[in-house]
Amino acid sequence: MKLQQFQHYLQEKKIDAAFFHNLEGMQFNATMYYFSKYTGSGVLLIPQTGKPFLIVPQLDEERARQTKTNVIPWKKKKLFETLQETMKKEGIGRKNIGIDYEHLTLSWHHMLKKELGKKLIDIHPELISLRRTKTKEEQDIIQEGCRKKISIFQKTLDAWNNFKTEGEAAAHFQYIAAQQGFSLSFPTIVASGKHASLPHYEPSQERLQRGFCVIDCGIRYQGYCTDMTRTLFIGNPTQKEKQLYEFILSIQEEVMEHYKAGAKVSDLDFFVRKKLGKYEKLFIHSLGHGVGLDVHEAPPISARSKEILQEHEYVTNEPGIYLPRKYGIRIEDDLLITKKSPIVLTKACSKQLQCF
Amino acid sequence: MKLQQFQHYLQEKKIDAAFFHNLEGMQFNATMYYFSKYTGSGVLLIPQTGKPFLIVPQLDEERARQTKTNVIPWKKKKLFETLQETMKKEGIGRKNIGIDYEHLTLSWHHMLKKELGKKLIDIHPELISLRRTKTKEEQDIIQEGCRKKISIFQKTLDAWNNFKTEGEAAAHFQYIAAQQGFSLSFPTIVASGKHASLPHYEPSQERLQRGFCVIDCGIRYQGYCTDMTRTLFIGNPTQKEKQLYEFILSIQEEVMEHYKAGAKVSDLDFFVRKKLGKYEKLFIHSLGHGVGLDVHEAPPISARSKEILQEHEYVTNEPGIYLPRKYGIRIEDDLLITKKSPIVLTKACSKQLQCF
Repeated sequence: MKLQQFQHYLQEKKIDAAFFHNLEGMQFNATMYYFSKYTGSGVLLIPQTGKPFLIVPQLDEERARQTKTNVIPWKKKKLFETLQETMKKEGIGRKNIGIDYEHLTLSWHHMLKKELGKKLIDIHPELISLRRTKTKEEQDIIQEGCRKKISIFQKTLDAWNNFKTEGEAAAHFQYIAAQQGFSLSFPTIVASGKHASLPHYEPSQERLQRGFCVIDCGIRYQGYCTDMTRTLFIGNPTQKEKQLYEFILSIQEEVMEHYKAGAKVSDLDFFVRKKLGKYEKLFIHSLGHGVGLDVHEAPPISARSKEILQEHEYVTNEPGIYLPRKYGIRIEDDLLITKKSPIVLTKACSKQLQCF
Repeated sequence: MKLQQFQHYLQEKKIDAAFFHNLEGMQFNATMYYFSKYTGSGVLLIPQTGKPFLIVPQLDEERARQTKTNVIPWKKKKLFETLQETMKKEGIGRKNIGIDYEHLTLSWHHMLKKELGKKLIDIHPELISLRRTKTKEEQDIIQEGCRKKISIFQKTLDAWNNFKTEGEAAAHFQYIAAQQGFSLSFPTIVASGKHASLPHYEPSQERLQRGFCVIDCGIRYQGYCTDMTRTLFIGNPTQKEKQLYEFILSIQEEVMEHYKAGAKVSDLDFFVRKKLGKYEKLFIHSLGHGVGLDVHEAPPISARSKEILQEHEYVTNEPGIYLPRKYGIRIEDDLLITKKSPIVLTKACSKQLQCF
């Protein structure tokens, strides 16, 4: 996205080129996608000016050619030979090479030191800083992704009475997403009854159980993740159960108004903990996180973080309480940060307690 | 799996403990699962003797308690404080700490150096060597996983006439898998017509096209991946198309007999390239790879590899040819290596060219 801004940074810091790679199977590499929209395997080399280079195995050459980068297939020769030849031919310096300390493994670091550059410089902070605020184009994609996700979630609720197990409910969401050609941000969580006390529960083949049922789901739309949680009720809630849900919902809505550019994220987390009173000890995770090409990215919205919210960040607001082996409740919205109240991207999806 | 064998290695090499971590969201960490069956976030510390320790965030404490490890929740204190306290209390030395160079990032390396050990030793080769040959227990899981995968694939073929798009076919496979409570080894590939020339194609919402249709699919069963490819035909194949398919199939079956303990993997790859004759240049990937808790693991079955096949390895045999913008054919079986002919785990799934 912000390729020119990144190249300007490289020039300023006298970094000859930045090196990224994705050679471990078929994983999605967010930074490579960010600068090239490429989802295959290979190496992305970004020089100080001009189009980036994708050096790819033959197997992915055709896919790479669908991007706007310079594509160099690496065939009989070894990867580093091809890379060195390319750099020489294109006049790309090899004195200072930018690498991502948060992603590069020790094995790759040893190889790069040997094969590529004299000085390897950590550019992770710059990448984080570029990616955390979203461009207009990214915001449009994210808004559309949230709309599509809500529609798939709604279709899942419409079919709810057909589901006997948590696995069936999760499978249905995923089926509609796949039918529409979307992959997932993460495997769908459907956690009913006592299972709801596990925030990262993996749905089972057990029958849906009476009580709160936490559904945490997201699709990936044009690379960008969405991440929303709703809590339903299976059976008839007691007055106390209704009140507990309403209590969490009211806190989730109250804190929402404080999500704005300039807010200290630790204040947001602390606000929720204070409001929770005696339930605070059941709030066993942080209030939220940034979202983007990775489902968890900067900034974290937690008590320990020193971050300040910035305009055009895309973050979650997800308080929850969990009583082991008893119940769990979590309500999560996706927000775009502005100078005033946030844009709630998941507003169209009701938060009234729905019972089945 | 081979925890005692690994601890014996630690003793022999005078490594006080091995450190593994999974703190980046909800990714599956194969090595942590291998030694603990834990799929959540946290740190796994394996001392020279006795049960391993899982140091986990509060959010995943309940999940960790379902494993057979010692669980230390890390609450208000920082991770490394908790880790250091645990090591001191349990009398675990901090002189030599084993880490995995293939997985540890530079950022984590810097942190560990500062917080944990004086000497950090790469144990990646030992992990690879332990994991590549499968125990009886692992072989049983893998065989059952392959049976389940074939049944889901067969159900997908049974419903084939309902599918209009590649996305619908892929979604169906994934739906049945999820309904049965299985996650995927990788997103299902359904590539028809000219799309089949992209080995790692992502299914689209376009209508299924006439021609060969490559389906590459796998489920994860009790942690272990499966990985199988079949090529169908949409429409009526010409005599030449039938012959081409039969040609690839015959090579795939011929090379199968050479998969046995003691075989050089480069010889296998070379055997296929020689048989392919003028089609060799369309064979743009290697012949196969090991499978296990990761879908791609040791050994690679490629021309450049110096590996020798060992008894009890679980590998693929997947020759393929790809003519850009025209067609693709790939046939892939999962094998268990023995001293003689391999056990073909995907034998029950027909390789006759099925037409739809």
